[in-house]
Amino acid sequence: MFQSFSESSTPDDGPARLADLRQELVAAGLDGFLIPRADTFQGEYVAPRDARLAWLTGFTGSAGFCIALANRAGVFIDGRYRVQVKAQVDLDHFTPVHWPEVKPWDWLKEALPRGGKVGFDPWLHTLSEIEGYRDGLKGCGIELVAGENLVDRIWVDQPPRPSGKVTAYPLEFSGEKSGEKRTRIAKILLEAGQCAAVLTLPDSICWLLNIRGSDIERNPVVHAFAILLDDGKMQFFTDPEKVKDLGPDPNIEVLDWDAFEEALAALKGPVRVDKASAPIHISDVLREAGIEIDYRDDPCILPKARKNATEIAGTREAHLRDGAAMVEFLYWLDGAKDKPGLTEIDIVTKLEGFRRATNMLLDISFETICGSGANGALPHYRVSESSNRTLEDGDLIVIDSGGQYFDGTTDITRTVCVGNPGGDERAAFTRVLQGMIAISRVRWPRGLAGRDLDPLARYPLWAAGQDFDHGTGHGVGTYLCVHEGPQRLSRSGEVPFEPGMILSNEPGYYREGAFGIRTENLVVVMGAPELAGADKRDMLSFETITFVPIERRLIEVDTLALAERDWLNAYHAQVIEKIAPRISTAAKGWLLKAGAPI
Amino acid sequence: MFQSFSESSTPDDGPARLADLRQELVAAGLDGFLIPRADTFQGEYVAPRDARLAWLTGFTGSAGFCIALANRAGVFIDGRYRVQVKAQVDLDHFTPVHWPEVKPWDWLKEALPRGGKVGFDPWLHTLSEIEGYRDGLKGCGIELVAGENLVDRIWVDQPPRPSGKVTAYPLEFSGEKSGEKRTRIAKILLEAGQCAAVLTLPDSICWLLNIRGSDIERNPVVHAFAILLDDGKMQFFTDPEKVKDLGPDPNIEVLDWDAFEEALAALKGPVRVDKASAPIHISDVLREAGIEIDYRDDPCILPKARKNATEIAGTREAHLRDGAAMVEFLYWLDGAKDKPGLTEIDIVTKLEGFRRATNMLLDISFETICGSGANGALPHYRVSESSNRTLEDGDLIVIDSGGQYFDGTTDITRTVCVGNPGGDERAAFTRVLQGMIAISRVRWPRGLAGRDLDPLARYPLWAAGQDFDHGTGHGVGTYLCVHEGPQRLSRSGEVPFEPGMILSNEPGYYREGAFGIRTENLVVVMGAPELAGADKRDMLSFETITFVPIERRLIEVDTLALAERDWLNAYHAQVIEKIAPRISTAAKGWLLKAGAPI
Repeated sequence: MFQSFSESSTPDDGPARLADLRQELVAAGLDGFLIPRADTFQGEYVAPRDARLAWLTGFTGSAGFCIALANRAGVFIDGRYRVQVKAQVDLDHFTPVHWPEVKPWDWLKEALPRGGKVGFDPWLHTLSEIEGYRDGLKGCGIELVAGENLVDRIWVDQPPRPSGKVTAYPLEFSGEKSGEKRTRIAKILLEAGQCAAVLTLPDSICWLLNIRGSDIERNPVVHAFAILLDDGKMQFFTDPEKVKDLGPDPNIEVLDWDAFEEALAALKGPVRVDKASAPIHISDVLREAGIEIDYRDDPCILPKARKNATEIAGTREAHLRDGAAMVEFLYWLDGAKDKPGLTEIDIVTKLEGFRRATNMLLDISFETICGSGANGALPHYRVSESSNRTLEDGDLIVIDSGGQYFDGTTDITRTVCVGNPGGDERAAFTRVLQGMIAISRVRWPRGLAGRDLDPLARYPLWAAGQDFDHGTGHGVGTYLCVHEGPQRLSRSGEVPFEPGMILSNEPGYYREGAFGIRTENLVVVMGAPELAGADKRDMLSFETITFVPIERRLIEVDTLALAERDWLNAYHAQVIEKIAPRISTAAKGWLLKAGAPI
Repeated sequence: MFQSFSESSTPDDGPARLADLRQELVAAGLDGFLIPRADTFQGEYVAPRDARLAWLTGFTGSAGFCIALANRAGVFIDGRYRVQVKAQVDLDHFTPVHWPEVKPWDWLKEALPRGGKVGFDPWLHTLSEIEGYRDGLKGCGIELVAGENLVDRIWVDQPPRPSGKVTAYPLEFSGEKSGEKRTRIAKILLEAGQCAAVLTLPDSICWLLNIRGSDIERNPVVHAFAILLDDGKMQFFTDPEKVKDLGPDPNIEVLDWDAFEEALAALKGPVRVDKASAPIHISDVLREAGIEIDYRDDPCILPKARKNATEIAGTREAHLRDGAAMVEFLYWLDGAKDKPGLTEIDIVTKLEGFRRATNMLLDISFETICGSGANGALPHYRVSESSNRTLEDGDLIVIDSGGQYFDGTTDITRTVCVGNPGGDERAAFTRVLQGMIAISRVRWPRGLAGRDLDPLARYPLWAAGQDFDHGTGHGVGTYLCVHEGPQRLSRSGEVPFEPGMILSNEPGYYREGAFGIRTENLVVVMGAPELAGADKRDMLSFETITFVPIERRLIEVDTLALAERDWLNAYHAQVIEKIAPRISTAAKGWLLKAGAPI
């Protein structure tokens, strides 16, 4: 079982550790220290050794940070974690702060006098982040000081760096040789007049080198840094032990972590650095060595997002496999959910079991969200032993999950009902479905970005005075991170969609204390198919690659427009055609009913 | 009759005038000169004395410019004017250039050697525009030089500045005293630490002073400059003769044009200047006087766009009056269009007659667009004696028109058919209508701008591989300019909508050489009405204020979703309720049929 349901944290250890940290503050001549949740790679998941925020405070959320001062310690958490933080930290010693409503610099200005000095570990913060602090603190005489990590100094039994084995990601799945990718990116550098690019994003490095790793959970990435030169050669910094089975490549020099700073200082400029993702320490090293820095985005991000035909084919296959597991699961759930005593944990466990039964599951792609009743109204709800809930008649259950397979990464949400759903639930489910169908059907003139399409997913909800407070969709990797940029289907999505980009299409609706709804398929951006009567316009469209039936008992059929009903019936016909050959006879019987025309 | 159908231009005069201009170039030591279409106020309409581009080249379009060099003269025109320019300029002496595809600086770089000097009149160009040139010319050694207007020097019989009478715009229409407006805007200046704002946009000045003018056609504005001080006092620069009937105001000093530069140089800084609309000469004067400039948008733009309750009430009434005239017109047209020989000019003339018959029409708000058959495919088509076309069976006719009334400005488009329309026409008309209904029905969370809603108007067309190449809507003034910012319903609309803003809602479809379609109502942004079952969200919506039936013979009823059909029937019921009491008995009989439920 990949997922665990235990509370991995207790508020008990925090106060003593905070006291230790404060002694270090005094010794270092500092008035405070920043403890981010992020590691040096700025990813969504961190290794145990990097779980400094959880170790110090008890708070285990996936975003947030602590600022520890001599007389107070603020734990900055966003809207998702307002409740959780209170259960996880010792409130006599740590103060939850509502972020981003309260800016950390404003909090610091109120807490510290002029001349205050706040330390931070320059490997754990990006230049953009520190620039934000320095802008915010301008004129108030409080200074941010890079230095040693004081948490690491007091964390006696801090785990070592992860050393997960690295595997090659072969051409039959990557579709392009690493050498060709490196030549392609090197050309971008040459054209921009850059002699080298520093790469610090693990999924960029994995994509570029056609490798995958096992340093952290859920995301099959390798913890490493890299320098790509404008001739396509590369230096790769990690624990050499991890890659020794890969065999040598004359164009790739494998070096230990320790060699990174020296290699940076030996570069010719201008060096391309992504200020939004690279640790600020890299800029400091380059600057001190007198090397010119050209701040631009990581040059792998956009090429990686444009999946090639091989990656798309692999992802399609992964979705058929995953879809078959989901259908077996939904068939089981349909029979089990009305029996007394079934809990959220039972459902999560069973679902992972169906994915494991494919014999191809390498990991789940994130912690399964299974929220029944009022728990479903928390978009990022993760069930634990203490929050676990038994299903009740009339419940909706939001189940958002995915798998990591060698050929692709999946992410799917279905909402099902127990017994007879209420009218509000069905009306909202139908609106969410209309939004999801609008995105599935849209074709648009090339050049538009996520922001331009996001409103289409909300229009039916808006008409009822409703909405949802998350984006409509995120980018998805190919056996890489389930959250991948730069494309996104949201108000902040400004990068134009290009063929090959994979996105989720997941509108929802959440009524606090009552119920939640979300329906999610993955889609791939494609050139729009030819159409009789169309203008000569370069248009794009989404191809849906998730094939799992949508809960018909929650649909108000009369609300759907003809085109929406046609889409749903055609979709379900495709689900049956593609998935029926891959599932058990009993599940097939169920699927034929679940996917029958409405 | 406001509208004229004569070709006001001939290509014959251009060559001799160009030769004269070239002599002036030599005398001034210049290699070229910019001749913009714009006047110093950057408006859509110019006075005869400012029609320099038309005088020099023969080209009368509403956008474009000429760059005259010793050996060539480029006339830069956008997609709307590619055909027209060829008929209006002497092609042996002037070369049409496709703009904005070809940037003028790139054209200059190709045409001139290093050291080239191009003159321009600093009263006719904004700082933003000249910055664009200077950026584009960076490093190529070609220089832009401010100086005397060489066209004015050779234009012997150039008309004088307009001296249209200024009238007060009373409180019963403006809804807020000028003194209160000035106090409000002065507070904005005070808060921004600005001592004064320079105002150069005629509609800003008219709004702020509650006056209207008659210096140009179509837009009832006053040509003037103004300086607003941070205590609410104002200097107003124009021909004092124009305003002498208004009576004195101790807080407003009326000065002649000549006094403007001196007054600028006497200001204390920082002075607020809008670099996108103010002539660059203003910045030059301030800079030379050592006065600090704070570049920000004209502080009246946003307050003017948020119409108050009085302005909205006036605009509603103007639309009912205009709607009644439109219905009388459509009733007439319905009887006349199938008879042989009816032309576009007949229709335009008749329509203006129905508006005049209200006895309230002060002007048309722009040249009526009446495009039948293939002429309808030109979104900005303006009929002339030579382009005039006789209606034929199967034609669609796009009629886009509006009136200036003392209580408001109207703008409406209806598309009607002659005889039996084709299937493609009806399908496209229905899609355009669906987009127009989507905008009419949308409610959205406060904070969104035109860019966020624009795709809703296009979605049905996109689904058929179609689109239209103009924005979905523009802001509209209150007895001011029919095109008013900053709000707009388009991909470039980034200013969030606020209650009181008036916009057009006018999706269309154009098939070159065949037909055009556009349906347009005006809408006002309002707080969204209460709704049972809605979340607690601050949402806005549009209230439609145009009441004229939509051609039912062009609607594919079965394509409409239930909600769309409901909207249309409710809209037509409102049209009948509001307009029937205002029209002739015969027209009423027609309206009852035209607006019957579908």
